[in-house]
Amino acid sequence: MQVTNIPVDARNRESTRHGTHGFPMAVYNSILSRNVLGYTRLHWHEELQFCAVVQGTVTFSVNEASCQLETGDGIFINSGYLHMARPLGNPDAGYICLDIHPRLLCGFPGSVLEQDYVLPALSDPVLTARPLYRKDPWQADVLQKIREIYQESETKRPGWELLATARVYEIFAAILCHHPSDDFRTRKWSRANTVAQRILSYLTAHYGERITLAQIAAYASYTESECCRIFKRFTGESIFAYLRELRLEQSVRLLDSTDQSISEIGENCGFSSPSYYIEAFRQQFHCTPFQYRKKKRS
Amino acid sequence: MQVTNIPVDARNRESTRHGTHGFPMAVYNSILSRNVLGYTRLHWHEELQFCAVVQGTVTFSVNEASCQLETGDGIFINSGYLHMARPLGNPDAGYICLDIHPRLLCGFPGSVLEQDYVLPALSDPVLTARPLYRKDPWQADVLQKIREIYQESETKRPGWELLATARVYEIFAAILCHHPSDDFRTRKWSRANTVAQRILSYLTAHYGERITLAQIAAYASYTESECCRIFKRFTGESIFAYLRELRLEQSVRLLDSTDQSISEIGENCGFSSPSYYIEAFRQQFHCTPFQYRKKKRS
Repeated sequence: MQVTNIPVDARNRESTRHGTHGFPMAVYNSILSRNVLGYTRLHWHEELQFCAVVQGTVTFSVNEASCQLETGDGIFINSGYLHMARPLGNPDAGYICLDIHPRLLCGFPGSVLEQDYVLPALSDPVLTARPLYRKDPWQADVLQKIREIYQESETKRPGWELLATARVYEIFAAILCHHPSDDFRTRKWSRANTVAQRILSYLTAHYGERITLAQIAAYASYTESECCRIFKRFTGESIFAYLRELRLEQSVRLLDSTDQSISEIGENCGFSSPSYYIEAFRQQFHCTPFQYRKKKRS
Repeated sequence: MQVTNIPVDARNRESTRHGTHGFPMAVYNSILSRNVLGYTRLHWHEELQFCAVVQGTVTFSVNEASCQLETGDGIFINSGYLHMARPLGNPDAGYICLDIHPRLLCGFPGSVLEQDYVLPALSDPVLTARPLYRKDPWQADVLQKIREIYQESETKRPGWELLATARVYEIFAAILCHHPSDDFRTRKWSRANTVAQRILSYLTAHYGERITLAQIAAYASYTESECCRIFKRFTGESIFAYLRELRLEQSVRLLDSTDQSISEIGENCGFSSPSYYIEAFRQQFHCTPFQYRKKKRS
């Protein structure tokens, strides 16, 4: 299973359900080129995320930090942090991804597992993310377990949920035991994270309208220049470059799922004119919206 | 930690608390000679039990079946089944024992782990117990994990509960995947189990009084001869031999913890005369009650 276009709610929190209620672990192989924009857009969710790159090189950004992970490397991303993934070089780069709701690890309410390990880890401001490199033995072991969970989940043999749960506990224990890390720019959960989350929320809620930097700054309760600086630090691009991609991505959904005209879609997605929409689309996807829709429907 | 004298409630259910509420896993090394009677008397509890013999040979009886386990072998005993352990040969035989409340494995209420694995296993009439032999690779692996949990629990390193939980899931998965077993006399949870439990309850509640076979049969709602036959199948001894051991065991508690006279203790434990009590005590423990108390208090 691959979520090719990650739906986000108004707070930019991913609204895909990860796994089932009874077994809240989603396992998938994410090939970045299958995303509309060719990468996984900035988002966050309550689930803990464990990734292992299986093809190419992927740049993961979590909060304000980035790391380049080659095939065989991976990363743990804690609950609630903004993150994105882009291919570096080969656009078909991809990774195995386990999204695990913390309740899978908490056990029964009030358990030692919940009280002494899971809740402290969730609220630890230093434990943002932890890259995992194949050259370090304990990290190689964690990466191997991530791949094993993926393989087991494909077979769905009786008992696989028990074994997957066992492996997740082992992975989680290994990460906690080697925390805090020295080799990653972990930073305190900061006001900057809140500001970046608010900017994203505003863009997601209002991309169909005309948006000014003054409006964004007012919503984020921060100066315009600080908003630009913080947003760039988190996403690696400017607010308006990000907004343009967000609008294009939304327009692809409308092209796919509605019979609205190209002009209507451009307007609904906040482009100031049809010609500007078509030009932006061509720059991003190397074809016009009309060509895209025709090809998709043929 | 060793529970040398297993306290049981009126239903002959062990009333020792296993582990803590927050982490319901008790881990101990049971040396049979340290029990008052030199063995672990018939009892049951809600906890799942995983044992690995570390010294000598132990005969485990679960419900109506028995198996002899040598050093390096072990056994899984499901929740709710009557069981006992006796040394064979060397009286210092001993085993590592993990008592695990099912809620440790259930996860959150309604989880797949609970609904699809733990609850079905608890109510599976065929899954009474599973001996584990060191010569079979998967069973050797389970036995190794039992010993590892014991070792980790001794160190109590940060994270040991996470790793112990992971190993218990692996052990549980292995046992379920290899179930049903062919090499153990598993039998349907039967009316006989209920009858044996009722007989034990009656003996535990009334050992201080004169007890007749007619009373026991009336309480168990079964014929006298069937009561004798079933009880023998479950415990390997007659009702009255068992009752004598139960009375002697209780008398040791009173010798240790009260200042009652030998005569009073004999009477309170249901012996028909002081001389019969003293003679029975000498046969069992090779000394008189008076000598025992004097030595214990010196």
